Amino acid sequence: MKLFNKTVIIGTGLIGGSLGLDLKKKHLVSMVTGFSRHKSNVELAKKSGAIDCIGSSLEVVKDADLIILAMPPEANINFALKIAKKIKNDCIVIDVGSTKREIVSKINRVIANFIGCHPLSGSEKKGATNISAGIFKDSVCIVTPSARVNKKALNRVCLLWRKLGSKVVILSPEKHDQVLAFTSHLPHVVAFSLINAIPDQFLTLSSGGLRDTTRISASDANLWSEVFLSNRKNILFCLTAFQKKLAALKLALERKNRKLLTNILSAANKKREKLG
Amino acid sequence: MKLFNKTVIIGTGLIGGSLGLDLKKKHLVSMVTGFSRHKSNVELAKKSGAIDCIGSSLEVVKDADLIILAMPPEANINFALKIAKKIKNDCIVIDVGSTKREIVSKINRVIANFIGCHPLSGSEKKGATNISAGIFKDSVCIVTPSARVNKKALNRVCLLWRKLGSKVVILSPEKHDQVLAFTSHLPHVVAFSLINAIPDQFLTLSSGGLRDTTRISASDANLWSEVFLSNRKNILFCLTAFQKKLAALKLALERKNRKLLTNILSAANKKREKLG
Repeated sequence: MKLFNKTVIIGTGLIGGSLGLDLKKKHLVSMVTGFSRHKSNVELAKKSGAIDCIGSSLEVVKDADLIILAMPPEANINFALKIAKKIKNDCIVIDVGSTKREIVSKINRVIANFIGCHPLSGSEKKGATNISAGIFKDSVCIVTPSARVNKKALNRVCLLWRKLGSKVVILSPEKHDQVLAFTSHLPHVVAFSLINAIPDQFLTLSSGGLRDTTRISASDANLWSEVFLSNRKNILFCLTAFQKKLAALKLALERKNRKLLTNILSAANKKREKLG
Repeated sequence: MKLFNKTVIIGTGLIGGSLGLDLKKKHLVSMVTGFSRHKSNVELAKKSGAIDCIGSSLEVVKDADLIILAMPPEANINFALKIAKKIKNDCIVIDVGSTKREIVSKINRVIANFIGCHPLSGSEKKGATNISAGIFKDSVCIVTPSARVNKKALNRVCLLWRKLGSKVVILSPEKHDQVLAFTSHLPHVVAFSLINAIPDQFLTLSSGGLRDTTRISASDANLWSEVFLSNRKNILFCLTAFQKKLAALKLALERKNRKLLTNILSAANKKREKLG
């Protein structure tokens, strides 16, 4: 069942490209055009079957029924402002980025049918070399419509994610940013800081613990600087909460308070179990 | 090639049991007796082929050529003190725990041929249900002899780990504890604190980032309280270093200093790449 006809993906990296691949495989759209700021990226996306053709000019957005913004947040916003007057009235525009408040408020002013989406399927990898099928299956996609979005458009976008196997959760853009500051942005801050604290010459004497704990510190520095700045206040709030937990454990250790230390670690065990 | 005849494993959990399994598979020892404070653990270890028989009394250590202490650190120390006068003069005793200064200094006073070992092959799992073959292959094992240990005994212990596929690194107990405070104990402190900082109701809206960053927060609370206390000063030192990195990132974010933020994240990228 086709949900959209002409589809344009702006940014054919890990998420944009993998989305194109699944949309085509499942015949959910009729024709996928890809754009990228990096020629090699879009050519690789075409080779891997993620897009049908490479867009040669901005004019291709004129006929689009669905536009997917899959570049870093600021590039997405700038691109949307540029094309707002070119697209059809009933064209639906979505993004797939990690923060939502800023992008939804800026793009919704000029494109009524812009719907923020955040598939929780990313990783520390990036680029068209990492395009792969099925990454949205059994994953959560958070959809963050503003009050301006019409119900029909929202339903079609939610259906698209469900057809890809995602569980759709609808949140306001503000709530999304509050929650993700804790569950995604804070772990990134922690991972970046942790690896930076380890002396170089000790790295070889480590095991899976350090490797897993710092995996996401390999995430793109430019992209994540943008994400951090775009959700700055929420992240600062989470960071303070984390610093308090760290200080409490440190104090228990300083005071050799074994009972308190074990309680802190047991609470962590219990909470981690809920994560599965 | 047999390296040891009668071998006794005290504590047949993940590490002790897996070690028995590999020693037997590779015919490096002739007979493995298992002891455990938990009856079900030692029975399961026997079923899984990790040990040949279950020790019924402490007397079994009398004939042992190799004793492997694989309980938590304090239990290992207490057990060693108890058996010191029962064992043969040329019996070699090793442990497999996460800290070395305290255990080496306490046991070496009473058992000259005690050699601290730390195979970097553990995980957040524990118990005989998690015994598995080959976990020491392509892994590092840190061996921490004291000045009292005779060279021949040390060579045999190193050869044992090499036969299991481990790369042996020799460090003093003090240096081991300094290094591991950074590469293992600090990541544990961070993971326990991170999961404790996340509100329960947000846990379902997370992805692989949080899951990997907090995997080791499922590690046994009692065991890790012991480990933390036994390497307290080094861990407090690392914790302060980490807090400084965290504060630097926080300050860059507070000041919206994108250049500094990107520099911090890029440094993390480069260091993480070295970890592989």
